[in-house]
Amino acid sequence: MNNFQFYNPTRIIFGAGSIEKLKKLVPRKARILMLYGGGSIKKNGVYMQVADALRKHELFEFGGIEPNPDYATLMKAIKSVKKNNIDFLLAVGGGSVIDGTKFISVASLYQGQDPWDIVSQGLASGIKKALPFGVVLTLPATGSEMNHNSVISNRDKGQKLSFGSEIIFPKFSILDPKVTYSLPKEQIRNGLVDAYVHILEQYLTYPVDAVVQDRQAEALLLTIHEIAQRTLQTDPPDYGARANYMWVCSNALNYLIGVGVPQDWATHGIGHALTALYGLAHAESLAVTLPWLLWYKREQKQEKLLQYGYRVLDQKMQKYSERIDRTIEALAAFFHSLGMPTTLTSYGLDPDQVADEVQTKLEAENFARGEYRDVTAADAAAILRMSR
Amino acid sequence: MNNFQFYNPTRIIFGAGSIEKLKKLVPRKARILMLYGGGSIKKNGVYMQVADALRKHELFEFGGIEPNPDYATLMKAIKSVKKNNIDFLLAVGGGSVIDGTKFISVASLYQGQDPWDIVSQGLASGIKKALPFGVVLTLPATGSEMNHNSVISNRDKGQKLSFGSEIIFPKFSILDPKVTYSLPKEQIRNGLVDAYVHILEQYLTYPVDAVVQDRQAEALLLTIHEIAQRTLQTDPPDYGARANYMWVCSNALNYLIGVGVPQDWATHGIGHALTALYGLAHAESLAVTLPWLLWYKREQKQEKLLQYGYRVLDQKMQKYSERIDRTIEALAAFFHSLGMPTTLTSYGLDPDQVADEVQTKLEAENFARGEYRDVTAADAAAILRMSR
Repeated sequence: MNNFQFYNPTRIIFGAGSIEKLKKLVPRKARILMLYGGGSIKKNGVYMQVADALRKHELFEFGGIEPNPDYATLMKAIKSVKKNNIDFLLAVGGGSVIDGTKFISVASLYQGQDPWDIVSQGLASGIKKALPFGVVLTLPATGSEMNHNSVISNRDKGQKLSFGSEIIFPKFSILDPKVTYSLPKEQIRNGLVDAYVHILEQYLTYPVDAVVQDRQAEALLLTIHEIAQRTLQTDPPDYGARANYMWVCSNALNYLIGVGVPQDWATHGIGHALTALYGLAHAESLAVTLPWLLWYKREQKQEKLLQYGYRVLDQKMQKYSERIDRTIEALAAFFHSLGMPTTLTSYGLDPDQVADEVQTKLEAENFARGEYRDVTAADAAAILRMSR
Repeated sequence: MNNFQFYNPTRIIFGAGSIEKLKKLVPRKARILMLYGGGSIKKNGVYMQVADALRKHELFEFGGIEPNPDYATLMKAIKSVKKNNIDFLLAVGGGSVIDGTKFISVASLYQGQDPWDIVSQGLASGIKKALPFGVVLTLPATGSEMNHNSVISNRDKGQKLSFGSEIIFPKFSILDPKVTYSLPKEQIRNGLVDAYVHILEQYLTYPVDAVVQDRQAEALLLTIHEIAQRTLQTDPPDYGARANYMWVCSNALNYLIGVGVPQDWATHGIGHALTALYGLAHAESLAVTLPWLLWYKREQKQEKLLQYGYRVLDQKMQKYSERIDRTIEALAAFFHSLGMPTTLTSYGLDPDQVADEVQTKLEAENFARGEYRDVTAADAAAILRMSR
């Protein structure tokens, strides 16, 4: 096991009916800016539940934070923060709204010239002040409700960058599984796949005798396999499945399974390029990349692939080499069982052309990911060429 | 899954060589009282490592905190806190030293008449101020380094009580697996059993569709099975095993596996009585109780016993009733494999006499534990009568 630090002070309030607890979680005298996305919270009742819980508070709002939250939008929110003397932020949404709120939290108090520097120059870890914020989670997937990372896009500059700092842990996150009842099946499928890939990025590398973390990662993978079909049920939705879905997504990226072990994240890097160039949803971009990346790296990753296959996917045949092939196939089959394609061709994309275009983009970014930092732009192209 | 809150702000600094990080973790101007137990830290080098890391700090010390820390001893430490204007505590030890430090942390700033009220009247949750403290863990077992509970004894009053409050989370805990190298085998065995039983108290109850928590609990149990024999090796000690041993103990009682599920704790209640009356070590008292309690409650607990047997102990034979018997036997066999007895008779105690005496003691305490609060003093006696 490698040396590590673990720190996660976010308070989780979990369960049906939890949104009303907002009234005690937010300081009584706070001037609150509630941040949200495209307005689905006005249709599914969440907006009303939040407004009701905070009816005795001073509450302002800012809607319209888009998927892959844009710097320009967030700067507008910061204007509202300053104009209204806001001292508490409340993100009501999924990963994009939460990530956007994390940026607003830091940038609202930033004294420097250009707030984009916080992201592009990695200044956040040196910053000591940020507006406190809470979360009401509406779309389980990214884990942002229980970590200190944020991914922000700058469409003017054509950039999508992440930053992290201990000052952007949410003070609290409210997780009410019932808010997922109104989600389209596709978003739930995407959430399950996103969480699943988060786990594999921290697990499918090479062994460092981290038995605890390996077993904890496998626990979350087994959970997703166990609950996936029940979670996709909509008529009626299954509360227990939705509760486990919501909690497993937070646990997939709250740092616990990732401490003391090598991490990969090449699939995420390649996936981000696919989203930027072809508009694939984040989870879709991961699913067309990961099985092929594992195939491409199956020798380097063989020990963990065998462990994953044996313990999670029940691949126990005698021939080891066969086990790895069957493991990767079983992973793809699992994605298919959720209705999630695993090839670029499923989206009408030409793998050769995509490979060339992604390679050009990643070369410009000096792409180097993977547990050995040895997955280059050329490797990404080789991986994507197989995605057919 | 039941509704829950999860909150754990303790910073973990993990790995060989971590003790030197104390110098940055403790505020530069702090007046520190270092608390420890019987002096083993002077023999194994930990005392010197701490003193060296804090050589530029103002450091005082208080040794002699006994196992099952006594109120009278802790009150002496509080005198030292006041006399020396201490504003930061550092627990260097195992569960007893940490639990004692938690009490000192709260009681040092307590304004009421009698600090014992904090424990006996459950006042801690209403108290807002406590001295900040950090931990250097030397004996992995109780999980106290990563939770907000504390068990304090009052030998004058013949009481042993627990209290808890969010103000007594450690600010940080340093976990260096190498400090376990000097532990006697028996203490490691005790630590493994203590952690194992902590997990089962939160797991072996009845199902509430908490797939995440069940899988996470099983992950920790499987970890202990996987590392136990390696952890007991002493010549030379196995760093990886010791690291997993240390981290699994923290994870066994940092609340993550216990949120949203029923909990039992009857074994701990009965065990405390055995320790008080016959001087059995805490882990020994658990091991002579748990298998018999499971036998006694095997119908009520059958669903989780079957799950535990199947997933953790590989009990997959066709006859379900047989599976439960074999599961309880396999648990006892696991304890035996660590050199841990599971019967009162192993200690030369007469189960019938013990049962009578424990029943009398627990009746006086209105004992009622278990996930249904239905394990009474009479049940405890019936359980202990089987321990032969």
